[in-house]
Amino acid sequence: MVATRNPLNIGAAARAMANFGFSRLRVVNPYEVAFREARSAVGAAPLLGAAEEYAGVGEAVADCRLVIGTTSVGHRELQHPLRRLEYGARLIRGALAGGEGDAPVALLFGSEKFGLSNDDLSHCHWLMRIPTVDRNLSMNLGQAVALCLYELARDPRAAAARPMKIARATAEANEQITARLIEVLEKSGYVNPVTAESTEEKVRRLVRRLDVPERDAPVLLGMLRQILWKLGE
Amino acid sequence: MVATRNPLNIGAAARAMANFGFSRLRVVNPYEVAFREARSAVGAAPLLGAAEEYAGVGEAVADCRLVIGTTSVGHRELQHPLRRLEYGARLIRGALAGGEGDAPVALLFGSEKFGLSNDDLSHCHWLMRIPTVDRNLSMNLGQAVALCLYELARDPRAAAARPMKIARATAEANEQITARLIEVLEKSGYVNPVTAESTEEKVRRLVRRLDVPERDAPVLLGMLRQILWKLGE
Repeated sequence: MVATRNPLNIGAAARAMANFGFSRLRVVNPYEVAFREARSAVGAAPLLGAAEEYAGVGEAVADCRLVIGTTSVGHRELQHPLRRLEYGARLIRGALAGGEGDAPVALLFGSEKFGLSNDDLSHCHWLMRIPTVDRNLSMNLGQAVALCLYELARDPRAAAARPMKIARATAEANEQITARLIEVLEKSGYVNPVTAESTEEKVRRLVRRLDVPERDAPVLLGMLRQILWKLGE
Repeated sequence: MVATRNPLNIGAAARAMANFGFSRLRVVNPYEVAFREARSAVGAAPLLGAAEEYAGVGEAVADCRLVIGTTSVGHRELQHPLRRLEYGARLIRGALAGGEGDAPVALLFGSEKFGLSNDDLSHCHWLMRIPTVDRNLSMNLGQAVALCLYELARDPRAAAARPMKIARATAEANEQITARLIEVLEKSGYVNPVTAESTEEKVRRLVRRLDVPERDAPVLLGMLRQILWKLGE
């Protein structure tokens, strides 16, 4: 994080790092030296305590094999390849998995007001931007850090998975509910004797459409039995 | 946003909404009625001004066809299907695209300290969680909102695309650079006459490995010509 003005943003960045499993925070010339006490950094105290401070970007990234700058791309003419976060994160994951040695990969975030300077950018291999709707409306720094780390930690396979399938009631349970409901409707005078058969079919289809979860079947049956009992009084 | 304590978080949420093209913000019982003046809400003033206030979750989501709660899942036993953000967002996009009428879809965020209450959760169809490393370390509220909206706006195809391919120097340009560099090395006494031929091949391979961008070829040639001129003085 380069020339960050608001220490709360360093705290928020540290918290997002803890949330997504990143551990090395480096700050270059923060506006407040007391950034380590940043509030709102729930759970990020160890990370803030271990943050390394540098006087310049060059020193901060000296041991890194890949340096990526982040930008909201205002009017500045960029001299670097600019990649969308989705694609950039894929390249970074590839570099991290590619066994290119243990040297770290750096992700650079500029100040809230001005972003990264041209001098900061000259240390970068390429740049990454978050795909916001309006390029002139920059993102909040803490949110931008969280998004980049989330995208790096994101599991593309999770989008396809169905981790929690709700068990549905069996046909037998559905039929019990249907039978009790029809009884209730009969006793309440809802069912017209002339159209009783078609009503039964309608109720059966309705219960099937509800797709009652397995766990809710006994609850519904209990409710219907209670209503039946009260109607029979 | 339900029972939000810190108005800065409402501001941060509004800013993220503006960043990703969402427009309807509803707040339920915020701790500060003056939330509309939230700082840090750069570019989100119109959104905050138009935010609707409600006394309860039921009224806030009354016109919604789908209500999704967000949770960091602490120790609470959940009575709902819980989906990871990647998968949940896909379901929401599907619902939004499915032409199921114009009724809105609601995304619920609870208070910073306690999240959504069991009563709030009972209004939800299902729940969504952000896949953090440590489930006991909750996310910052403003960051959580930004992540959910980003995932909803995210373009999966962008991860595969290569939007900006850098044009590389032609073989001719590479050979000009190689020739000038060899001249410079000869004039500087770097080349041992005995091994001159293998040196030439080494230099040629080195220049190819550099994979010089097209735009940088004339710059490098200019540098080498200047050095040659100085060496010839």
